[in-house]
Amino acid sequence: MVVSLCDVARMVDGQLQGDGNIPITGADIIRDAQPGDVTFADSERLLGRLAACRASAVITPPGIQPQGLPFVTVSNVQEAFSRVVAYFRPPQQDRRVGVAASAVISPTARLGRDVVVHANAVIGDGVTIGDRTVIHSGVQIMAGCRIGEQTVLFPNVVLYENTVVGARVLIHAGAVIGAYGFGYTVVEGRHRLSAQLGHVELGDDVEIGACTAVDRGTYGATVIGEGTKIDNHVMIAHNCRIGRHNIICSQVGIAGSTTTGDYVVMAGQVGIRDHVNIGERVTIGAKAGVMNDIPSGATYVGIPATPERQQLVILAALQKLPDLKKQLRALQHTVTQLEQAAGTLTRQEAA
Amino acid sequence: MVVSLCDVARMVDGQLQGDGNIPITGADIIRDAQPGDVTFADSERLLGRLAACRASAVITPPGIQPQGLPFVTVSNVQEAFSRVVAYFRPPQQDRRVGVAASAVISPTARLGRDVVVHANAVIGDGVTIGDRTVIHSGVQIMAGCRIGEQTVLFPNVVLYENTVVGARVLIHAGAVIGAYGFGYTVVEGRHRLSAQLGHVELGDDVEIGACTAVDRGTYGATVIGEGTKIDNHVMIAHNCRIGRHNIICSQVGIAGSTTTGDYVVMAGQVGIRDHVNIGERVTIGAKAGVMNDIPSGATYVGIPATPERQQLVILAALQKLPDLKKQLRALQHTVTQLEQAAGTLTRQEAA
Amino acid sequence: MVVSLCDVARMVDGQLQGDGNIPITGADIIRDAQPGDVTFADSERLLGRLAACRASAVITPPGIQPQGLPFVTVSNVQEAFSRVVAYFRPPQQDRRVGVAASAVISPTARLGRDVVVHANAVIGDGVTIGDRTVIHSGVQIMAGCRIGEQTVLFPNVVLYENTVVGARVLIHAGAVIGAYGFGYTVVEGRHRLSAQLGHVELGDDVEIGACTAVDRGTYGATVIGEGTKIDNHVMIAHNCRIGRHNIICSQVGIAGSTTTGDYVVMAGQVGIRDHVNIGERVTIGAKAGVMNDIPSGATYVGIPATPERQQLVILAALQKLPDLKKQLRALQHTVTQLEQAAGTLTRQEAA
Repeated sequence: MVVSLCDVARMVDGQLQGDGNIPITGADIIRDAQPGDVTFADSERLLGRLAACRASAVITPPGIQPQGLPFVTVSNVQEAFSRVVAYFRPPQQDRRVGVAASAVISPTARLGRDVVVHANAVIGDGVTIGDRTVIHSGVQIMAGCRIGEQTVLFPNVVLYENTVVGARVLIHAGAVIGAYGFGYTVVEGRHRLSAQLGHVELGDDVEIGACTAVDRGTYGATVIGEGTKIDNHVMIAHNCRIGRHNIICSQVGIAGSTTTGDYVVMAGQVGIRDHVNIGERVTIGAKAGVMNDIPSGATYVGIPATPERQQLVILAALQKLPDLKKQLRALQHTVTQLEQAAGTLTRQEAA
Repeated sequence: MVVSLCDVARMVDGQLQGDGNIPITGADIIRDAQPGDVTFADSERLLGRLAACRASAVITPPGIQPQGLPFVTVSNVQEAFSRVVAYFRPPQQDRRVGVAASAVISPTARLGRDVVVHANAVIGDGVTIGDRTVIHSGVQIMAGCRIGEQTVLFPNVVLYENTVVGARVLIHAGAVIGAYGFGYTVVEGRHRLSAQLGHVELGDDVEIGACTAVDRGTYGATVIGEGTKIDNHVMIAHNCRIGRHNIICSQVGIAGSTTTGDYVVMAGQVGIRDHVNIGERVTIGAKAGVMNDIPSGATYVGIPATPERQQLVILAALQKLPDLKKQLRALQHTVTQLEQAAGTLTRQEAA
Repeated sequence: MVVSLCDVARMVDGQLQGDGNIPITGADIIRDAQPGDVTFADSERLLGRLAACRASAVITPPGIQPQGLPFVTVSNVQEAFSRVVAYFRPPQQDRRVGVAASAVISPTARLGRDVVVHANAVIGDGVTIGDRTVIHSGVQIMAGCRIGEQTVLFPNVVLYENTVVGARVLIHAGAVIGAYGFGYTVVEGRHRLSAQLGHVELGDDVEIGACTAVDRGTYGATVIGEGTKIDNHVMIAHNCRIGRHNIICSQVGIAGSTTTGDYVVMAGQVGIRDHVNIGERVTIGAKAGVMNDIPSGATYVGIPATPERQQLVILAALQKLPDLKKQLRALQHTVTQLEQAAGTLTRQEAA
């Protein structure tokens, strides 16, 4: 597929600067672009990397003017670039499959209008599914689940009994919602599993990453608040209550009954112990280990997690610890000499 | 559903204190209970949180007497509360599905009495399954597996060839048992996979969390001992031999050929290197990184993991490190002054 | 099954030393071998453990001569031992299933020669699959994927749209390739998902562990280079470009747009932030947290990761920190005494 740069500018409602006749055959990011590609640079940092880039043209926001390359100025660079990429590599069209013949759907399940169920999905007793929701192949939905409108369950997602899923939710492949909580009491040297009578509730606009697990509550609900986005391989334990619009990055683990306020951000591989309360708009740094409550608005890092400023001071001191050790040794030497000198003086005094 | 508090007391064989006529419409934990709910408090700590709780009544053990709320005293609070929760939200009844028509079962597989196989499960050649075991939808059981009685495999569990599973085992959704061990030798700049001739053995009463992976042995078995409970996202590598009644929390990773004794407890996100031996009744703190053997009975924390007491002393010292640095600087200043003074004195002496 | 040790020696083209008439009934590693078993010892370390081993015979390389046990000398111990293990426990033979009746295959998919598709696998529109590739049960392959020759997808693997998989690739059960990248912009207090127009490319001879996730690029490809081996529960984020012949151990997390050179090795639970560039032949220690670029050939450890030598010095100093604190206190005491003495002297001077 070949178009002119003029055509690209028209496609994105942009202002062309430079030769509009050059042929454009694709679109890629700066790192990977080849001759014939259009790329984009929406920050000064990226602009600096254009010199070594092989792209034939670049899409930029007003105020960023690349040298030596024709460019197209638009107000929303990401949106414009998406349009060009989609032009050259049109997304796969879901054939309107409706409900696949191989899907296994309980006679007591109720599906809304225009629900799509792909091959081999299994939908249990009493399940309800809202309008325009898409259930991909190999999804397993156990009895009593309630799923909202325009939600997408990607292949091989598992929902245990009575899971409640809001509208416009995305759950990625291999995620498991509603498995048993990890709670035991010891009875005569054996671990006896706690009650598993609860379930999971995912609010509207929640997104759940691949292979992520959210365990059911012991008696009631484990709750993920509206608009919260969770990355791959995250573990949310039983009885947790995660606030709204949280961002929880990959491989985070949150132990039982912990709560978070709204707009909390956790970087990758954070661990939070059980029964901890995290305030609103808290930020937790990568790999932090949270042992105690965190007040609203704070940024915590480290193991155990403490306020960032405090941790940075400790970290800086730690880097200089070998140096500190040397200084102490030198000082010990000096003091010993002083003692000897003082001893001499004192003896001289005494003499 | 509405019952009187009297009815609730009778349901759990408890002793009622307060107004038995109040209507009860549900049951929930202290944090989430609403008016009309009964809740429970089985510790002094929870008792303190009752003041702010909206529940209409509370179930407690003997000796814990809440103020201002009717309460029901029972000997086993968790069990009693479970009964009340189950009354208001009866668990989904598995329709007796027997073997689903859509399950794909090898003609050489042998199923015990009252085995349940849900939709789209796949059972390979020569597999044997004990009485009353439940295979949920989408489970994949490869050839030669042997599974005990009253075991439950939740949806989309995968067992590779020759996996041995004991009786009364629970394996949660998305868990993978018996994938290849991660062992390579370098041959002419390429990594060549080691032998994959072994398998996995899970003892009786083992529980495996969602998305957990246990890799097969190189030549023989990777073994999980009887009664051991493993949480979600745990990785047990090839040739490991995990003892009995271990508790292994979420996101723990144990590298190849490592062994543990009985009653070991590992908190979340622990990592243990390969070929390490952990004794009996060892406790390992969250996020610890274990590089060496640990003797029986010890508690280890930190990266690298050391005895807890030692680590706590180091940690306390670390928190005060910036302070230490300041003290050292002050001392250097004092000593410099002393040197100058001593120089003066010495010079005066000499003069 | 019983053979003589002579038979075993013949089976592996080895040189027998000791009684060739003893009966051999199995093969296992030193730790687990029982009387009647043959075992192996291919290093001095293992030789030392033979004394406590119950095996009846041992396979060794030239130069390693165990005492008190008959042994068989071979040039390649692992290969020879594999042959003996496979003799006693022959691997499950895949019945030539061809394409299972229960597989759901789009009419527009194209399968090469001798492709095997197991029960309930789902293959989408326009997918192409190379000769002799094996698709296990429950695998979900979405539209537009291209898969090379002699590749194996184990049960319940999920490939999202347009995933490109090379030849001789192994992808283990539950792995998810091509899920959405975790990128958001905040618009009026809500997180809006970034473009998801890219895909994933796995080079030839790549191996992917169980439950591992590789996310698609935003606009172009997330790339895993030829020959790279990835363990279980690893997270590779959107736009990453992993070099060739990397070894990435379990539970590693690599954030968006990060790149690595060839022959990089990452131990378990490493975390790497986004937009970082790792050179060639870099080694990163277990649990390290990488915040910045790493030059080729370096070994980095710790959180934040620094060169190993530097980290070891800091770690050693840290272990002695409580001691350092004591020394400082002692020194403070001495200096105070010196000050007092100096004061006395000075006053005496002055007097």
